[in-house]
Amino acid sequence: MNDKTTPAPLKHVLFIMCDQLRADHLSCYGHPRLQTPHIDALAARGVRFSHAYAQGAVCGASRMSTYTGRYVSSHGTMWNFVPLSVGQKTLGDHLRPHGVRCALVGKTHVEADTEGAHRLGLDPTQGVGRLAMEGGFEPYARDDGIWPPGFKVQGNAYCDWLRAKGYTGDNPWHDFANSGRGDNGEILSGWQMRWADRPAHIAGAHSETPYTTDRAIDFMREAGDAPWVLHLSYIKPHWPYVAPAPYHAMYGPDDMLPVVRSEAERVDAHPVVEGFRRETVSRNFSRDEVRNTVVPTYMGLVKQVDDELGRLFAFMAEQGLDRDTLIVFTSDHGDYLGDHWLGEKELFHDPIVKVPLIVVDPRTEADARRGTVSDALVECIDLVPTMLDALGLPQPSEWLEGQSLRPLLHGHAGAAGKDLVVCENSFAFRDEVRLPLNQPVERCHMTMLRTRRWKFVHFEDLPPQLFDMQADPDELVDLGRDPAFATVREQMLGLLFDWLRQRRRFPTVAPDDIARWNQRELAAGILIGAW
Amino acid sequence: MNDKTTPAPLKHVLFIMCDQLRADHLSCYGHPRLQTPHIDALAARGVRFSHAYAQGAVCGASRMSTYTGRYVSSHGTMWNFVPLSVGQKTLGDHLRPHGVRCALVGKTHVEADTEGAHRLGLDPTQGVGRLAMEGGFEPYARDDGIWPPGFKVQGNAYCDWLRAKGYTGDNPWHDFANSGRGDNGEILSGWQMRWADRPAHIAGAHSETPYTTDRAIDFMREAGDAPWVLHLSYIKPHWPYVAPAPYHAMYGPDDMLPVVRSEAERVDAHPVVEGFRRETVSRNFSRDEVRNTVVPTYMGLVKQVDDELGRLFAFMAEQGLDRDTLIVFTSDHGDYLGDHWLGEKELFHDPIVKVPLIVVDPRTEADARRGTVSDALVECIDLVPTMLDALGLPQPSEWLEGQSLRPLLHGHAGAAGKDLVVCENSFAFRDEVRLPLNQPVERCHMTMLRTRRWKFVHFEDLPPQLFDMQADPDELVDLGRDPAFATVREQMLGLLFDWLRQRRRFPTVAPDDIARWNQRELAAGILIGAW
Repeated sequence: MNDKTTPAPLKHVLFIMCDQLRADHLSCYGHPRLQTPHIDALAARGVRFSHAYAQGAVCGASRMSTYTGRYVSSHGTMWNFVPLSVGQKTLGDHLRPHGVRCALVGKTHVEADTEGAHRLGLDPTQGVGRLAMEGGFEPYARDDGIWPPGFKVQGNAYCDWLRAKGYTGDNPWHDFANSGRGDNGEILSGWQMRWADRPAHIAGAHSETPYTTDRAIDFMREAGDAPWVLHLSYIKPHWPYVAPAPYHAMYGPDDMLPVVRSEAERVDAHPVVEGFRRETVSRNFSRDEVRNTVVPTYMGLVKQVDDELGRLFAFMAEQGLDRDTLIVFTSDHGDYLGDHWLGEKELFHDPIVKVPLIVVDPRTEADARRGTVSDALVECIDLVPTMLDALGLPQPSEWLEGQSLRPLLHGHAGAAGKDLVVCENSFAFRDEVRLPLNQPVERCHMTMLRTRRWKFVHFEDLPPQLFDMQADPDELVDLGRDPAFATVREQMLGLLFDWLRQRRRFPTVAPDDIARWNQRELAAGILIGAW
Repeated sequence: MNDKTTPAPLKHVLFIMCDQLRADHLSCYGHPRLQTPHIDALAARGVRFSHAYAQGAVCGASRMSTYTGRYVSSHGTMWNFVPLSVGQKTLGDHLRPHGVRCALVGKTHVEADTEGAHRLGLDPTQGVGRLAMEGGFEPYARDDGIWPPGFKVQGNAYCDWLRAKGYTGDNPWHDFANSGRGDNGEILSGWQMRWADRPAHIAGAHSETPYTTDRAIDFMREAGDAPWVLHLSYIKPHWPYVAPAPYHAMYGPDDMLPVVRSEAERVDAHPVVEGFRRETVSRNFSRDEVRNTVVPTYMGLVKQVDDELGRLFAFMAEQGLDRDTLIVFTSDHGDYLGDHWLGEKELFHDPIVKVPLIVVDPRTEADARRGTVSDALVECIDLVPTMLDALGLPQPSEWLEGQSLRPLLHGHAGAAGKDLVVCENSFAFRDEVRLPLNQPVERCHMTMLRTRRWKFVHFEDLPPQLFDMQADPDELVDLGRDPAFATVREQMLGLLFDWLRQRRRFPTVAPDDIARWNQRELAAGILIGAW
């Protein structure tokens, strides 16, 4: 990518992430019934990427990649609840030395490396120790949500806030924000999808998405003119699939995208795909009753995010913040919603790993590309480099495996996407998948490679998957065992081999320093083998 | 490897490492003239490994592998002076939580990750912060040596000790311990190899090797009965090649092993090998005058180490420490000394990467194998697992890539070596090699794979090297570009691909924990996709 000009840096970055949001559930990405005018307005002001890929197929792994600018194999958080090593550096670690705040409102799914903290004597409750446990984000208003019924929630700001508003009990997150009520006032838990068409038993303004938006507005008011990056990270439309009125009833089965699946997919399916299809969530989402109940509410949750973003953008415009703020909008992954006879996520079909990505750069250099769509292959690990670039900060290439999207945003001559994007996951954590295959936990790693033409998934000890993304964009025909495509599979294996060798395996020394090593040694007077 | 019995754990480990010691420069490894009776006695009491491989081809990378039990690509210290990330765990980090001291006497070549320390707010001068900067070793008497002439050495315990003994000046390490004197009293610096046949201008007992041994004895006296691992790490026979009397004159050219090289090796040589041959040290070691002056002194330095170890072992026997102490003796790599028209190290011929390894386990379970030679392929990353095993401590397999040698030491049925050993290096740091090839620093990584039959070295963008270790044990014929061996090279590439995919990429979660993940989720009440 060509990088001849260095425009004046911006002062702020608003880095918006939704959780489990499919790209195709936004009107700017083509949804015919779910109108998202505020997100569409972002696309009109910026560049919308039609081929942006997440690096993990579950929240934790995907987010750690996005936050570190590194592939899953490089940062080591291979799944949810796997601690992010204190040895990793995230966006905040790259910003802080330059005096830029990196604040969080909402979810990160960062799991603290308490073992690392203990080993290094860090105090995980304050200062840099706390930052290390928070993945480098100042936890201005962290909320990862997801409190199971019966769980006694303590010390959670949102639950405390709900209690102060009169939503009593151990777990108001569950009992009010994520549950409805039956005819006799009984709690209809959002953890059971059958209640997805009931409204949450909460005032709309008190539900999670508006609460999160309020905290973002609080932050912007308080932060003043100092440089900052705000990670505004909505937990919705992630399950539990429960929306407050009126969002619970805005859409019906007729508004849904048609389900993408075929009977042929179930014949002689890949054993790992079969494993995921055995899970409760997949069996349920394969039933029309479930889809008809759940998907409209999922759509309502997306609509609520869009409305709230409208409110936020109006506030920013009023404050003049739109002039010097880079805005990034994306998601951590999608949701099968029954496509391919699957629910949830974890595998590599486009509904999961192709995420929405819109970037608005307010500078004049970006004017020519405003409102355009880029079909370049890009990755979420490109976002940290893009944000650092926008703020005029250095890009430590010994850490970062992504690259700035600025050449694409500014329409540099020759700017192009990647030839290859990669996503990883492991089925080690899913007994339904792993145990019938008798696979050791160390050999459950899955690596997806996508080129312009092909999508290939490598498994250890099991056949690969292969899809022709041109002939079969819906990914209904797995060519992974088709003898006619042996050559393609060989080529994809070659790409995987190359990719593995190109990882940033040596993060404590910068390439530019290496190039000066010989001079350093000579300057220090170290003469090796002189006679 | 079979592991049916769990013998009573030992209390101590003495982990001896020499620097730049070739295996074939010990009499137990076959040197006909250089007698090393004390090291030979270790071999008689334990198992001597004839095919033990270092994981790095320079000090820093090799040692960080040995200390972490991880390959170079996994710990990220790819060369000398590259910081060991605070995110890595070493032997000491595995021992400390179990109340076992891990003390250092001598050299480690650990480079402090000051950037990581700063980021995490560690105090590098004390407590756990200091340990993190010392690679997890309690620096009881750290001394990495190597102070160039003219350097003002301050705060170095050995130099202070020398000054107290009357060796005055800014740099007594250089001026006395590593230099001789001319007829007019002028300093003949050990940094110039021409003076290697002169005695160091120091009393033998004040030279580095006895000083280091004294500190080890001090430690053992002070440590009392508490469990410990002592890393006794001699910097010799590493250059400067200067020995005190009488060691400077014990050997002559007739005592040297014949040089291993051929004229044919210089014809159409591999471009990276050619690059290293251009270095001063290689050009000098290709001259007989240089070898005849330097190698005898190198042998004298080895002899001095052996004598000092004899003194230490006598002390240990007197203290009864030999009964409950595992003893490991090894080196970080070898020294070309002119073999293959090369000096120093950095490449992968056996004189460099095949290291001496002797392990003495005093327990009765090891009796049957005492005094035997194992030709199993083993690696230095196996040493941390072996030491933890001997002390009865757990082996965190999410970190450790090596495996305990106990099955081989105790002669378990079916105990065998590895099918593959691996060593890595990068020529990015050597201008003479990299610049003529126009190779970017990121593409200078070299990976050696050795099986029972073959040794293969992979380069990026350049042809590989291939040696038939059965037909050509001296590695004089590089088959890397021979069309007759294309199939072998393909097989070796396949092994590299497999090896890369099997790295411990996810150090913050243990495989056993992963296997319990599903149960944890269910126990927490997280129901995904229930209807």
